[in-house]
Amino acid sequence: MNKGVTLSKPFPSDLEIAQKAEMDPIVEIAEKTGISEDRLEPYGKYVAKVLLDETTNAENAKKKGAKYIVVTAVTPTPLGEGKTATSVSLAQGMHKIGKNATLTLREPALGPVFGVKGGAAGGGYSQIVPMEKLNLHLTGDFHAITSAHNLLAALIDNHLHHGNELNIDTRNISWRRVMDMNDRSLRNIIVGLGERMDGVPRETGFDITPASEVMVIVSLSSSFEDLRNRLARIVIGYNMNGDPVTAKDLGADGAMAILLQDAINPNLLQTLEHTPALIHAGPFGNIATGNSSVVADYVGLEHSDYVITEAGFGADMGAERFFNVKCRKSGLKPNAAVLVVTVRALKSHSGLYKITPGKPLPEDMLKESPSDVKAGAANLQKHIEIVRSFGVQPVVAINAFPTDFDSEHDAIREIAEEAGARVAIHRGVAEGGAGVTELAEAVVEACDDKSDLVYTYEDSDSLETKIEKVATKVYGADGIEVAPAAKKQLKRFEELGFGDLPVVIAKTHLSISSDPSLKGAPTGWTLPVREVRLAAGAGYVYAICGTMRTMPGLAKTPAAGQMGFDENGNMYGLS
Amino acid sequence: MNKGVTLSKPFPSDLEIAQKAEMDPIVEIAEKTGISEDRLEPYGKYVAKVLLDETTNAENAKKKGAKYIVVTAVTPTPLGEGKTATSVSLAQGMHKIGKNATLTLREPALGPVFGVKGGAAGGGYSQIVPMEKLNLHLTGDFHAITSAHNLLAALIDNHLHHGNELNIDTRNISWRRVMDMNDRSLRNIIVGLGERMDGVPRETGFDITPASEVMVIVSLSSSFEDLRNRLARIVIGYNMNGDPVTAKDLGADGAMAILLQDAINPNLLQTLEHTPALIHAGPFGNIATGNSSVVADYVGLEHSDYVITEAGFGADMGAERFFNVKCRKSGLKPNAAVLVVTVRALKSHSGLYKITPGKPLPEDMLKESPSDVKAGAANLQKHIEIVRSFGVQPVVAINAFPTDFDSEHDAIREIAEEAGARVAIHRGVAEGGAGVTELAEAVVEACDDKSDLVYTYEDSDSLETKIEKVATKVYGADGIEVAPAAKKQLKRFEELGFGDLPVVIAKTHLSISSDPSLKGAPTGWTLPVREVRLAAGAGYVYAICGTMRTMPGLAKTPAAGQMGFDENGNMYGLS
Repeated sequence: MNKGVTLSKPFPSDLEIAQKAEMDPIVEIAEKTGISEDRLEPYGKYVAKVLLDETTNAENAKKKGAKYIVVTAVTPTPLGEGKTATSVSLAQGMHKIGKNATLTLREPALGPVFGVKGGAAGGGYSQIVPMEKLNLHLTGDFHAITSAHNLLAALIDNHLHHGNELNIDTRNISWRRVMDMNDRSLRNIIVGLGERMDGVPRETGFDITPASEVMVIVSLSSSFEDLRNRLARIVIGYNMNGDPVTAKDLGADGAMAILLQDAINPNLLQTLEHTPALIHAGPFGNIATGNSSVVADYVGLEHSDYVITEAGFGADMGAERFFNVKCRKSGLKPNAAVLVVTVRALKSHSGLYKITPGKPLPEDMLKESPSDVKAGAANLQKHIEIVRSFGVQPVVAINAFPTDFDSEHDAIREIAEEAGARVAIHRGVAEGGAGVTELAEAVVEACDDKSDLVYTYEDSDSLETKIEKVATKVYGADGIEVAPAAKKQLKRFEELGFGDLPVVIAKTHLSISSDPSLKGAPTGWTLPVREVRLAAGAGYVYAICGTMRTMPGLAKTPAAGQMGFDENGNMYGLS
Repeated sequence: MNKGVTLSKPFPSDLEIAQKAEMDPIVEIAEKTGISEDRLEPYGKYVAKVLLDETTNAENAKKKGAKYIVVTAVTPTPLGEGKTATSVSLAQGMHKIGKNATLTLREPALGPVFGVKGGAAGGGYSQIVPMEKLNLHLTGDFHAITSAHNLLAALIDNHLHHGNELNIDTRNISWRRVMDMNDRSLRNIIVGLGERMDGVPRETGFDITPASEVMVIVSLSSSFEDLRNRLARIVIGYNMNGDPVTAKDLGADGAMAILLQDAINPNLLQTLEHTPALIHAGPFGNIATGNSSVVADYVGLEHSDYVITEAGFGADMGAERFFNVKCRKSGLKPNAAVLVVTVRALKSHSGLYKITPGKPLPEDMLKESPSDVKAGAANLQKHIEIVRSFGVQPVVAINAFPTDFDSEHDAIREIAEEAGARVAIHRGVAEGGAGVTELAEAVVEACDDKSDLVYTYEDSDSLETKIEKVATKVYGADGIEVAPAAKKQLKRFEELGFGDLPVVIAKTHLSISSDPSLKGAPTGWTLPVREVRLAAGAGYVYAICGTMRTMPGLAKTPAAGQMGFDENGNMYGLS
């Protein structure tokens, strides 16, 4: 680990470690957490749904004063900086130092499992188990979301087919279909071909399920009733008069709710060290909120002293929405933020290297070079500043890799300390919770600091002002440049009564700016708002600032081809 | 019931009855059935998966000599004749007379739930519960099948996108995508539009999930290993040399198997009277086998004295495949067949009435008329003959409706007795198992008769001969007329080594002939074979004899619009 030495034994794969895990029965995990048995619906021996009831709300969640910690990161490289691994590590570390902690995480999507990476459940000795369940169907929430989403799509096309009584403008339908699969061929399709009985031809497409508005609805709903109301409000497009057409207008909301009645209940799993983990919802981090569910956090806070949750991508992305959208909706206030940083991330922010997903790191990047790390300091400094702008203290968590050098860790430590932030190294992937006690202690301390959530904008600000405030106050842009059609659209959303919604900026996660090639902490730039869209059910307006892929593709040699069962019936290749 | 009187109280809906059911915990059902706890994976309190193990095979299934009963029917009206309701009724009736019986049924698809009918779990007091689970996601098997199917589709288009090394002929790809939704707009689509990075444009489409070959594979596999081998053999289309391209060639089979590792385990539920019911797989009855899984039958026969299974549509359809395909693959031999008949079915076979789905029956059809029933006798006689051609004795089961008259039941009884068949009335829907004891006794008697399964054709017959034998020996056609291209294709399948596969005739279920307008027992007709297709993974060749819809549509006023939750949070509208 230190001095860049190679481990003498080859490090086992995530799947191998996970398969050897000795899990506790999930009823024991629940019991330990104080979740009563009548609220538990087991799915096999090691997974259960925790049923919501009338006690699941913000008031109860806040009653005992549990601490609420969000894990975020610097601007990641395309490889990711181990934010999930750090979240799992920290939860394990908390238990190691005798604290009662629960982890709340997004559920990984199925599609990417067969793409490049194979699986996503943390890493090494800091994983969520059973990892095969987590990475495959789990309890079917994503499938239920897919079904509910596609039922609405089928009802739209059925409505067109049977005479279009609502006078829907077929050129202005924003509701596409979804599939939990990396399938680029479905991005742009024409449906309704064939004969008269085969529907009305029109252009549309599929997104991956995490990009579904239904996914965000599941994540932001505070109860099943709230979910039903949100479904009814979904705007699928506009009629020929330019008025919004809703899921309720199509009579879809009741049936969609029926499909989602199990999906609203969080899933209880455990870490390799038996820490309870509530895995629930998985909205996209670039076009949506990128945060796990509100109700899982309610359940966690009701039953633990510390709840650790993860927000997607860097602090400018998932954490900004965590504060401005999720916490605003949930009524919860975080006590601390963990800011994950890696040696390779800061080296990459030096601007000296180019990292390509699916390819090994440039060889020079693996050489000892604290000065390269320091050259990328601006990014870490900016993210510390972003977290603080929300009234919350960051704890910088250095996610140690076997290829790191102590001098490089020291460099990060210096940068963080200069910025007045707490900092700790963790080795959760290689060592499990035992390698995370320093970080856990720092987080416990940070939670005792005064914190008071400050939003970047007020509900009463105009939509354009909200976007501008995020761009300038969070990203550090000089301002925003809104395309004329988008400006008009924002006005229209306000006329329609959506002016008090929060905003989500759909931009690249590879830079704090909207240009993925700008590393560090870019200044002197303007956020270009190309287009704005309404997610009326989820409850926000989102601004498209760049090219957003909502349906990934598969690699030339997809991970799927390397998976299967050996002659003894053992699964291989999932990670 | 008798004399056509209306019940004094309005009969409660299926959902209302099901919601009031007092279910036994599924672990108790399993224990009673002798399924050990370590083979049980509960999904909530009332549903469990029964895990296959090395004891799940034909040999063990036959060891204790349990009786194996298939429920089939006369040619149904478009409304269906209550075959599932009769199967559930019979299982409950068996328990009423002190017999240890298990039911094995197909899982209903999700799509049609939102179409016309709302739900499918039997009816009235003969239902499978929890019916909400059964009619919605259950344990996610259909979703897993959808994912596995669509992963293969994504891998095909990905292969084309990355250079088409296998030289696949894009005009000759038979593998489409699937969705468990009634969505006519997806029948014929163009994918791969957009830019260069968005795939290769080509025409394709979606079928509903029950039409997936993966669904048939799950139903016909005798073990998880067998399933894996079948997945590898799937032929997705042909290369430019006309050679088949398989799922294995695309490296898809391992990942597909990973997605299906839970789906291969049957689901244990119960009837309203606590009879164990194994619900597993649901292949289409017109283009596929229309029978529940082989492994569920193995598990049932291993643990009960009587196993009752249902085959889709009339005896010419599901039962013919049950005998010629499912039993041939499973190595099991049935002891008796139950032939469901209704007053309205025989009246419709008189040719005097026209029944339209979604509309009430013609008023004249509800008047007392044993002569109309007798006018439809030929259909029942022919189905009795079909069942006997397989070496199995039929028990005619009259599924009594409240609108029936005793004189009409007597007429059916006469027809059956004249044909030398056992016959019994059952009132399972209105009365539960107590109304089915006569039928249960008759079935027990029939099982003690000598039976010896006779196949319609031999493995060694040519494919064309197999089709011809089914047409003439089962349907009563004069012969078959194979289109020249289909003839050539059959030859090609034989050259490729698929000549020993059984055949499935994809024809209408509304007539024993291939013309849905021909009622009764049509003679003097020829079966037109338009096209033949290969299901190499499932293990059969199928002959398309008519227009087959593999993706249903929604009605103008779909059932989905009438569903939801009331102000007290109670679900309504599912049935």
